[in-house]
Amino acid sequence: MNKRDFLAVEDWSFAEIEALLALAARVKRGEVLGGLERKVLAMVFLDPSLRTRTSFETGMFLHGGHAVVLEPGKGSWVLETEDGVVMDGDTVEHVTEAARVLGRYADAVAVRSFPRGGDWATARQDAVLQQFARHCEKPVINLESSRRHPCQELADAFTLREKLGETRGKKFVLTWAWHPKALPTAVPVSAALAAVRMGMDLTIAAPEGCDLDPEDVRRIGELSTEAGSAAPAFVHDQAAALAGADAVYAKSWGPVSIYGQAETQRTWFDRYRDWRLTADLMATTRDGRGIAMHCLPVRRNVEIDDAVLDGPQSVVVDEAENRLHVQRALLLTMIGSTR
Amino acid sequence: MNKRDFLAVEDWSFAEIEALLALAARVKRGEVLGGLERKVLAMVFLDPSLRTRTSFETGMFLHGGHAVVLEPGKGSWVLETEDGVVMDGDTVEHVTEAARVLGRYADAVAVRSFPRGGDWATARQDAVLQQFARHCEKPVINLESSRRHPCQELADAFTLREKLGETRGKKFVLTWAWHPKALPTAVPVSAALAAVRMGMDLTIAAPEGCDLDPEDVRRIGELSTEAGSAAPAFVHDQAAALAGADAVYAKSWGPVSIYGQAETQRTWFDRYRDWRLTADLMATTRDGRGIAMHCLPVRRNVEIDDAVLDGPQSVVVDEAENRLHVQRALLLTMIGSTR
Amino acid sequence: MNKRDFLAVEDWSFAEIEALLALAARVKRGEVLGGLERKVLAMVFLDPSLRTRTSFETGMFLHGGHAVVLEPGKGSWVLETEDGVVMDGDTVEHVTEAARVLGRYADAVAVRSFPRGGDWATARQDAVLQQFARHCEKPVINLESSRRHPCQELADAFTLREKLGETRGKKFVLTWAWHPKALPTAVPVSAALAAVRMGMDLTIAAPEGCDLDPEDVRRIGELSTEAGSAAPAFVHDQAAALAGADAVYAKSWGPVSIYGQAETQRTWFDRYRDWRLTADLMATTRDGRGIAMHCLPVRRNVEIDDAVLDGPQSVVVDEAENRLHVQRALLLTMIGSTR
Repeated sequence: MNKRDFLAVEDWSFAEIEALLALAARVKRGEVLGGLERKVLAMVFLDPSLRTRTSFETGMFLHGGHAVVLEPGKGSWVLETEDGVVMDGDTVEHVTEAARVLGRYADAVAVRSFPRGGDWATARQDAVLQQFARHCEKPVINLESSRRHPCQELADAFTLREKLGETRGKKFVLTWAWHPKALPTAVPVSAALAAVRMGMDLTIAAPEGCDLDPEDVRRIGELSTEAGSAAPAFVHDQAAALAGADAVYAKSWGPVSIYGQAETQRTWFDRYRDWRLTADLMATTRDGRGIAMHCLPVRRNVEIDDAVLDGPQSVVVDEAENRLHVQRALLLTMIGSTR
Repeated sequence: MNKRDFLAVEDWSFAEIEALLALAARVKRGEVLGGLERKVLAMVFLDPSLRTRTSFETGMFLHGGHAVVLEPGKGSWVLETEDGVVMDGDTVEHVTEAARVLGRYADAVAVRSFPRGGDWATARQDAVLQQFARHCEKPVINLESSRRHPCQELADAFTLREKLGETRGKKFVLTWAWHPKALPTAVPVSAALAAVRMGMDLTIAAPEGCDLDPEDVRRIGELSTEAGSAAPAFVHDQAAALAGADAVYAKSWGPVSIYGQAETQRTWFDRYRDWRLTADLMATTRDGRGIAMHCLPVRRNVEIDDAVLDGPQSVVVDEAENRLHVQRALLLTMIGSTR
Repeated sequence: MNKRDFLAVEDWSFAEIEALLALAARVKRGEVLGGLERKVLAMVFLDPSLRTRTSFETGMFLHGGHAVVLEPGKGSWVLETEDGVVMDGDTVEHVTEAARVLGRYADAVAVRSFPRGGDWATARQDAVLQQFARHCEKPVINLESSRRHPCQELADAFTLREKLGETRGKKFVLTWAWHPKALPTAVPVSAALAAVRMGMDLTIAAPEGCDLDPEDVRRIGELSTEAGSAAPAFVHDQAAALAGADAVYAKSWGPVSIYGQAETQRTWFDRYRDWRLTADLMATTRDGRGIAMHCLPVRRNVEIDDAVLDGPQSVVVDEAENRLHVQRALLLTMIGSTR
């Protein structure tokens, strides 16, 4: 099939992503009208969404198109994702048929599928997303998989440039935060990739043992080399890491080495309940004016304190708004036109 | 923030509401095309809906706009509504962020949030709606809260004028009806407000002890004075109340004095199972031709008998249709244009 | 009420259906633009959907209209379907009001309601669909009821002609397949009706005792006479039936004589687990090139083997795509224009 998916930002060239961000800036300034007339985006949500759904649905509409929102297992059929299986259990439709059929109705298909337990070796394959990409004859967009959240990554890159101007050589700290659940690693990996793509000096601050997928870590390193940024630093001292930061990205995730092990996770997490982005920590950033970022949804006073979220350093709402603009640019690039 | 919400009809001036009803009449006659091009309404339903959702979604479309429908806890994240809380429980996103972010994607945000147990002193604060209004930078529309159902109130006022012509001095009876559940008071309060706004003589017929919120009752009295209508009458004899009525509005609600007390409610309700709008009662209205109103959904043969709903005195379907027209007028007024 | 519903294909004349299929062909070739401007379709799903929902929503949009998707019991109220009932139980709204009100908001109302247990004598009445048709003042479209799936039937007829060219006198085999649940008979009956309408020689291959509704069988026979096709053959030998077939339609259903009897069904089904459409069976079709059809969703390696679904004889994805085109033609015919 001759088509171009958007499963990970790094699948596209630096030049392509730069063009996309430039288009997003024009879109945000209101300079791009139409371009998606008679175009349909089918969105398949295997997990909940507020921003992703609303921003894509709004983006399609604003340029003359339409988004159809499907929720398998709720309004539509439960999907089978294993190949070659005898489907005599609970699943009613195979992802193969869903992908093929939606590819006939829509001009692009967007899929959200978080990791679903089991072991990490399996979850990291992103089977649902990859199967959609393989079987759908139209371009597939990743709305967050086990491994990446590329639309968030675009928005984060766009927001860093918007807020910091020149990003090269500035300090970006991705800091782990406590959370009652072991969350996926797609967002922290994507945030790190966004920072090094922008030429920033990346520090990842997390408790000892809080590992990311080794291949993802390698990819972050490679991209920082390609982008000419400093080698990423991995540290365990949150306070030291945040000192002098230009941008702080707070995010919780579960260590991949204990992925899916509920009891071990609970014990591990209990030790780090104090990892929280506070106003005191934000005061130590560059000139006390470093920006605070988060992909949302955020648990207030658990991941980030009220004082930060409601204060002048938080850019989380602008960051969420930018989802809309980068996605409009993405859709115009993938299935539209930009006269 | 410099914006105009629509949380309660009485927040707007008499002249503004009159202008809105006049525009709704033009809309219903098909005289108003377009006016909402490139406009997006985000609708947040914390409770179910058929009429509200369909009429708003249709109204936006008919004038060139688009409505996004969100259901937190189903397709989107469970919302936290308390301020300052440490979000380490079940809620994933705070209403503050939802309101702020939706205000960036949409031109207006509409919210449905019924009372959810606890005590009436808390429920009557309408925290979810008020928080949306406070944190969203775009206008917020109330799709029914604990206290008001202002879109229904507009439709009721419009329907009274449409059906009765001159409404001033005519008799409007809001009669309580039995129901297997203790329902909210938003609709009966809004219906009473609609009637006195139209200058009608309001009688509220309900069993002894079936109280509404005292501040709401005071507000109904104040509005009847402002509108130059007779002082509302509160009676316990349903048959006597309905005699000679021009309009009868049947509606069940739970007494606010026993709000949230399941056992007490059950005992109280058991005594009044015979409060039901029957054809015999409707025959006693003015010339046997008084109109029967209800906001829908209605429990047949529990609140209102089949013979009434399927007979010539019922205007409930016209009343529901008018939701569409008043809301189109509301949207055009709040976020559109009416060339 | 002066309106035209689409509850079953055979309610329309041969000439009307031929015109519809001809329009669908023009639609598929991209020759028909617009025609549904300012038109609204309200879709009521009492059961899940992927193709039906996406194809109707896409179809409305492609011609300038809009589809509203409602799911009673999920986002909207639980519907009561019995007439005259005292609604003091779980149902909140009667289908009568839903049908009347949606008829005021929308230009057509489409309803999906599968059989829901009880006995077949009741289920075969299609009460929900019939009540919508009776109470809604706008045209009602059947999105699959207990008895018929007319949109699938149109797509099947269209696909047979598209794939086989001249259909008259060619061999169509509807073969039963095993399935872990006793499925409804709407699709097999509709598929059989599509085949005889196209003038094909119909064979229905199913295990002994696997009966369809007698009135539906009679209707298939009548239509084959009207269409000038051979009398349908009912056989129990799957392999013999498939030999030389031009088209094979695999579909599971529960015998209507044991409808709703879970234990009896289990015992009966256990005996026929080997009824499955395999590549070996497909090799026995005419020149080894007969087409394999299915309405989807399909249980892989239960109803049809991977080798068939992923092989060159399968037309199931084209068949699903054709849903879109026949439905666009249907909507243009029922509520639109075809300049």
